[in-house]
Amino acid sequence: MNTWSDRAYALLEAECRDRGVDLDAAAARLAALEVETPSWGYADSGTRFKVFKKVGVPRNPFEKIDDAAMVHRLTGACPSVAIHIPWDKVDDYHALADHAQNQGLRIGAVNPNLFQDDDYMLGSITNVRPEIRKKAVAHMLECVDVMRQVGSNVLSLWIPDGTNYPGQADFRRRKHWVEECLREVYAALDADMRMLIEYKFFEPAFYHTDLADWGLALLTAEKLGPQAQVLVDTGHHAQGVNVEHIVAVLLDEGRLGGFHFNSRKYADDDLIVGAIHPYELFLIFCQIIQAEQFGDEKVAATARSIAYMIDQSHVIEPKIPAMIRSVCNIQTQFAKALLVPWELLRDRQEANDVLGAEQVVREAFELDVRPLLHRVREEKGLPLDPMQAFYESGYQDKISERGMGGSGW
Amino acid sequence: MNTWSDRAYALLEAECRDRGVDLDAAAARLAALEVETPSWGYADSGTRFKVFKKVGVPRNPFEKIDDAAMVHRLTGACPSVAIHIPWDKVDDYHALADHAQNQGLRIGAVNPNLFQDDDYMLGSITNVRPEIRKKAVAHMLECVDVMRQVGSNVLSLWIPDGTNYPGQADFRRRKHWVEECLREVYAALDADMRMLIEYKFFEPAFYHTDLADWGLALLTAEKLGPQAQVLVDTGHHAQGVNVEHIVAVLLDEGRLGGFHFNSRKYADDDLIVGAIHPYELFLIFCQIIQAEQFGDEKVAATARSIAYMIDQSHVIEPKIPAMIRSVCNIQTQFAKALLVPWELLRDRQEANDVLGAEQVVREAFELDVRPLLHRVREEKGLPLDPMQAFYESGYQDKISERGMGGSGW
Amino acid sequence: MNTWSDRAYALLEAECRDRGVDLDAAAARLAALEVETPSWGYADSGTRFKVFKKVGVPRNPFEKIDDAAMVHRLTGACPSVAIHIPWDKVDDYHALADHAQNQGLRIGAVNPNLFQDDDYMLGSITNVRPEIRKKAVAHMLECVDVMRQVGSNVLSLWIPDGTNYPGQADFRRRKHWVEECLREVYAALDADMRMLIEYKFFEPAFYHTDLADWGLALLTAEKLGPQAQVLVDTGHHAQGVNVEHIVAVLLDEGRLGGFHFNSRKYADDDLIVGAIHPYELFLIFCQIIQAEQFGDEKVAATARSIAYMIDQSHVIEPKIPAMIRSVCNIQTQFAKALLVPWELLRDRQEANDVLGAEQVVREAFELDVRPLLHRVREEKGLPLDPMQAFYESGYQDKISERGMGGSGW
Amino acid sequence: MNTWSDRAYALLEAECRDRGVDLDAAAARLAALEVETPSWGYADSGTRFKVFKKVGVPRNPFEKIDDAAMVHRLTGACPSVAIHIPWDKVDDYHALADHAQNQGLRIGAVNPNLFQDDDYMLGSITNVRPEIRKKAVAHMLECVDVMRQVGSNVLSLWIPDGTNYPGQADFRRRKHWVEECLREVYAALDADMRMLIEYKFFEPAFYHTDLADWGLALLTAEKLGPQAQVLVDTGHHAQGVNVEHIVAVLLDEGRLGGFHFNSRKYADDDLIVGAIHPYELFLIFCQIIQAEQFGDEKVAATARSIAYMIDQSHVIEPKIPAMIRSVCNIQTQFAKALLVPWELLRDRQEANDVLGAEQVVREAFELDVRPLLHRVREEKGLPLDPMQAFYESGYQDKISERGMGGSGW
Repeated sequence: MNTWSDRAYALLEAECRDRGVDLDAAAARLAALEVETPSWGYADSGTRFKVFKKVGVPRNPFEKIDDAAMVHRLTGACPSVAIHIPWDKVDDYHALADHAQNQGLRIGAVNPNLFQDDDYMLGSITNVRPEIRKKAVAHMLECVDVMRQVGSNVLSLWIPDGTNYPGQADFRRRKHWVEECLREVYAALDADMRMLIEYKFFEPAFYHTDLADWGLALLTAEKLGPQAQVLVDTGHHAQGVNVEHIVAVLLDEGRLGGFHFNSRKYADDDLIVGAIHPYELFLIFCQIIQAEQFGDEKVAATARSIAYMIDQSHVIEPKIPAMIRSVCNIQTQFAKALLVPWELLRDRQEANDVLGAEQVVREAFELDVRPLLHRVREEKGLPLDPMQAFYESGYQDKISERGMGGSGW
Repeated sequence: MNTWSDRAYALLEAECRDRGVDLDAAAARLAALEVETPSWGYADSGTRFKVFKKVGVPRNPFEKIDDAAMVHRLTGACPSVAIHIPWDKVDDYHALADHAQNQGLRIGAVNPNLFQDDDYMLGSITNVRPEIRKKAVAHMLECVDVMRQVGSNVLSLWIPDGTNYPGQADFRRRKHWVEECLREVYAALDADMRMLIEYKFFEPAFYHTDLADWGLALLTAEKLGPQAQVLVDTGHHAQGVNVEHIVAVLLDEGRLGGFHFNSRKYADDDLIVGAIHPYELFLIFCQIIQAEQFGDEKVAATARSIAYMIDQSHVIEPKIPAMIRSVCNIQTQFAKALLVPWELLRDRQEANDVLGAEQVVREAFELDVRPLLHRVREEKGLPLDPMQAFYESGYQDKISERGMGGSGW
Repeated sequence: MNTWSDRAYALLEAECRDRGVDLDAAAARLAALEVETPSWGYADSGTRFKVFKKVGVPRNPFEKIDDAAMVHRLTGACPSVAIHIPWDKVDDYHALADHAQNQGLRIGAVNPNLFQDDDYMLGSITNVRPEIRKKAVAHMLECVDVMRQVGSNVLSLWIPDGTNYPGQADFRRRKHWVEECLREVYAALDADMRMLIEYKFFEPAFYHTDLADWGLALLTAEKLGPQAQVLVDTGHHAQGVNVEHIVAVLLDEGRLGGFHFNSRKYADDDLIVGAIHPYELFLIFCQIIQAEQFGDEKVAATARSIAYMIDQSHVIEPKIPAMIRSVCNIQTQFAKALLVPWELLRDRQEANDVLGAEQVVREAFELDVRPLLHRVREEKGLPLDPMQAFYESGYQDKISERGMGGSGW
Repeated sequence: MNTWSDRAYALLEAECRDRGVDLDAAAARLAALEVETPSWGYADSGTRFKVFKKVGVPRNPFEKIDDAAMVHRLTGACPSVAIHIPWDKVDDYHALADHAQNQGLRIGAVNPNLFQDDDYMLGSITNVRPEIRKKAVAHMLECVDVMRQVGSNVLSLWIPDGTNYPGQADFRRRKHWVEECLREVYAALDADMRMLIEYKFFEPAFYHTDLADWGLALLTAEKLGPQAQVLVDTGHHAQGVNVEHIVAVLLDEGRLGGFHFNSRKYADDDLIVGAIHPYELFLIFCQIIQAEQFGDEKVAATARSIAYMIDQSHVIEPKIPAMIRSVCNIQTQFAKALLVPWELLRDRQEANDVLGAEQVVREAFELDVRPLLHRVREEKGLPLDPMQAFYESGYQDKISERGMGGSGW
């Protein structure tokens, strides 16, 4: 360790000891944290007004994996990469998986696309036309097949279906079609596969969304079976919704399957994780770590099986640095949550000591956890500052040769 | 009928005939609509800043029933009145029920109060202190007993519990306490009783609310059993939430038990029903009527058993006129929803005709339904204009003798 | 008039007479209402996820004008069309203006584009690089020049600038640059030209928007001079904001220059006008008509000079029918607002009669104004049902020859 | 300094030196920060559902000042206390001011009450009845007189006026009455007095609020003159509004007069400052400190004259600890904002380095500033942990003798 880190770590250690927090255990848990990055996060994206194309954007799924591998080399925390079909459609998925493996990566979640085919304009699995629902199901089955080829065990479903106008469609019929179609896909899952069902408040539909909130996602998962769980995208809620509460509820039901991390101030802004409301991210992790450590068997197992995934859509940011920043922000807030003195918190909660309980949570957030992050990185032989290391790596120059006009969505 | 009504009715009838809408059936359904008014809606209420006391406010539960009876005499649509314990606590509940019956009323839902006892400051059924949870359960059991005495079959539960600060309490433990306590109350229900579980986005708690949304209310109801259903208060959602969609989902699950109607622009503003967003109220009724007419057996039965209740809290309005206005606004939007040409709508939905489907729904909203309201009122021997009739009745003068400083909450 | 319209009109007339509303005057005002449609409203558009291309979309500015002319022929209410530079850039603007004039149209507002050039990614007139600010100013000056060529007197400015992250830029410096750049454009206006400054809550920027609300737009307009006014887009506010109140304030300040009409439930959804919250649209028109009729000279003149423009972005809707629907919805709500009995309202407001005042406003909204619309259309020799007339016109078939892949944005 | 503080301070100092941040200057600025506490913050308050009365709540204005003095003794940062008339009405204001002075306090802002008199139910300075407007003006003039007696130079105006229903009142007339009435009050101000005009999104009115946003408050202030400024209450905005941007705009206009600090997740929740969204509080202070250090003369002077006031309304919290917590949270975020390396930030902004600029701001937030707080407290001879010191002081026991049922509002 460098001098600053050493001295700061010593101070943090002393403080944790005073609070009854086991910093070694925290370091071990932090070291084990895995965050999946999305292949499409390395590609061009934008708003409906404009996609500002960047130089060096990967031109194909293999190059996306190269970039994801670079992020993993720098952070040591991102050993898997999510793919999106058909954006990442290739002739030979084994080759893609091998390409990943050769760089120390694996393919993570497979994401079907139910929003870009012209047929889906008025709904994919909720379309009144049965042939379109069939097509959508077939596409998801194709993705299950891709999962087998790439060795993935997470099918990550975002059903973007919804309507734009009152009267446009029959809510209840569509609800039945959702259940019916997903039942077919669920039946095709292997025993070790999970289906994660994402919900979203609105967009691209602007009047109603078939899976608009966690309640609808959970209801659907319950109808399907134990391999179906809910996926929480941190940007997919109405303003003011208490996301950490939802996380706790889904954990308690054994149905929290994964996250799509990003941040937002307004709608589904898809900004860098933790950039707008870092305290909320910390409070989400608090729920998870408390469940890991104090939940009953089912709850703890659920917490330990969460698929942590980033899903952000850069508009103005350089792709790889934005991804590194998100990973680091996740680590920072996760580390802080690991330093909450849970027994003390429980005591104060038991005593109905409102201010005292709030204090221990807030104080953990106010700690400077860089020394802990440095220790974990050092022990893994990683650069202490992944962002700086990226800038110094020459990788950006190298990929500039790709030119402009790479993959988009 | 008066001349205007006659001529306007004839025009409406012709138009409905053209659209394939059975106006007689609509009239019959409208005539059967029952809307429960709340005893506390006749009492003084206000904001946290001020309760502006009104002259003539009832001084006890018997006078509240007198006012509710007056609203029923004028509208013919409000044969029951909800009570709230302990606000409406009396020594002899049979006497209260008799008092109602003598005026053509019955006691409707019984509402426990879990928010005004000092013990409940940090939670009632979610309090860390078991004796307080027990007290809250005992209070609800007391209400079940009141139900038996007054002949009510609806226990209307608003669990106001929540926290104000991160860390203040353990979400999952509280969730278990909610389930555990309500299970005890549920077990005490008679076979013909229903427990309606209300949810609310926030207030009086400002960080998290234990039953914050329909998902949590439904999850709780499912754990309890078939006699537990969800109660939708139209003012208890985050901004932008599609309430009619929730209504459809709960209908489809057979768990929509009732409504607390009011309107709002910002938070739980508790304004006169239909005053701010009348189209939303209409769209809610569209879901219900479609379910009544086209739902499968379970769905249709659920729709037909909905308890329609007003729950508004007047700040500046004269009590009885505000209640009449709410009832009339409900009738107006309900009537419009009855005039949707459902088969035509279905055809256009089947054809993916977005604009055509939207058109038939919107056009029903744009109809002037006063002739239909007049017909129904005339057939029941009611005043065509209940508000006008109230002003001319002398009732306000009569109750002015009660003076100022009546019941509040 | 057809029979239904005749009889219904007679009823409406009688009712208006009773309320002291001059139906002839209302008809005259309604007949004079002009609503500008946007050239880009006929082109393909979508969400960030997908643009679903439509058959028959115009391939160039001339064809957009053809479609706008069709809407005007059917509604008689849309004699002008807004253009957007560079989307509608042509070599010969006089030819474009002539093309419009030949079909009974004129070119309305000219809209610069400050969001699609790669240089504007981090700001146009707020960019830290002076050469980009200059470029943006030059583009607006070019638009002023286009105004002269096409005979337009409205420069409609949407400054999409903003930032995505805390710290990204200096708010106050950017504010000065906005003022400085617009001062330069303002100076170039002819005496009969107006600059309308639009504001928007968020998007495409997701942390801050330089002109985020009416306050910022007004502040800017005040610094520029009397030819600068504020443009209200009905979809550009935070949830819950009372838009009709803003309209009243801007009228009172003599600074309400125009509208971009559309509707939304969530964010800037750009749906068909009046589709989601029709009562709000009506209440906006109430403020305007009251200002026209009862405002002092400045206020009334401001109200009479409002530029009514549609700005919607169809995702799933057929273009021309969606535009016709918007125009008709505007007419409907405008007509209702014309039927408010203002003197009666004033009396009740003076008497602090809350329910009575609310009643006369709501009752006007609940009127069926189709007879009035029919009269106005009949007097102008227009089809009573413009939508039906469009479907029967064969125009859609004709433009289908354009094929798919027309103009977009 | 204690050992932990010493060592941690040394680390912080080294880090600041590396970033070009002058820690001594930061300490000096932090030491000079003054935060006014509100007399009513020591009294009982609650929600519309319930006021949970606390033991030891002050029974009169003198005891409120005792509590405020205790907070100042512990924090050294709260030398003034705001009063509210008539809640703090006393026969002898000189005696009240003396009582404050004897404990090292002064009376700060004087706050009129325009919402609790029965006459104000439908408006105070916007009431259609002129005698009520006059009464409201007279009350404000009385407050100006109180200011002279207690030596205050800030008149803090919250105009709670608004309406609950469409049509209830005439927006523009009310706007004129606001201007007219405040002009009268403004004319009565002494040369060294300021009038701070607060705005609020909604509540207690639920349809429109006459001064609903910063734009309306600024517009009003501009019409009055240079002694009128805007007061920002951090809980008075629509969801998602960028408050720090508003702060920057008002600073730039020389019209940011003061703050009412509190925090919220939903509406005007009035929670402990910084409890819900600490990053937002930090970003607000960033704008202020940047204006102090880099603003032109007018802007810097405005920033330096800001009246920092707490305005929170405790529902469940013990009063004095909640106030101490708010003060400490303000100091924490203020301290962090002082550690932003402004030149570096400016360089990165100039370079359009989005991630780099964001990084320096976020990193300042992630610093642990306790060593700096400790230094400042130690130099002032204050307890390092004011909260702990309060619990150990025996003060709570002492005031328990006041019993329950003290002042409320």
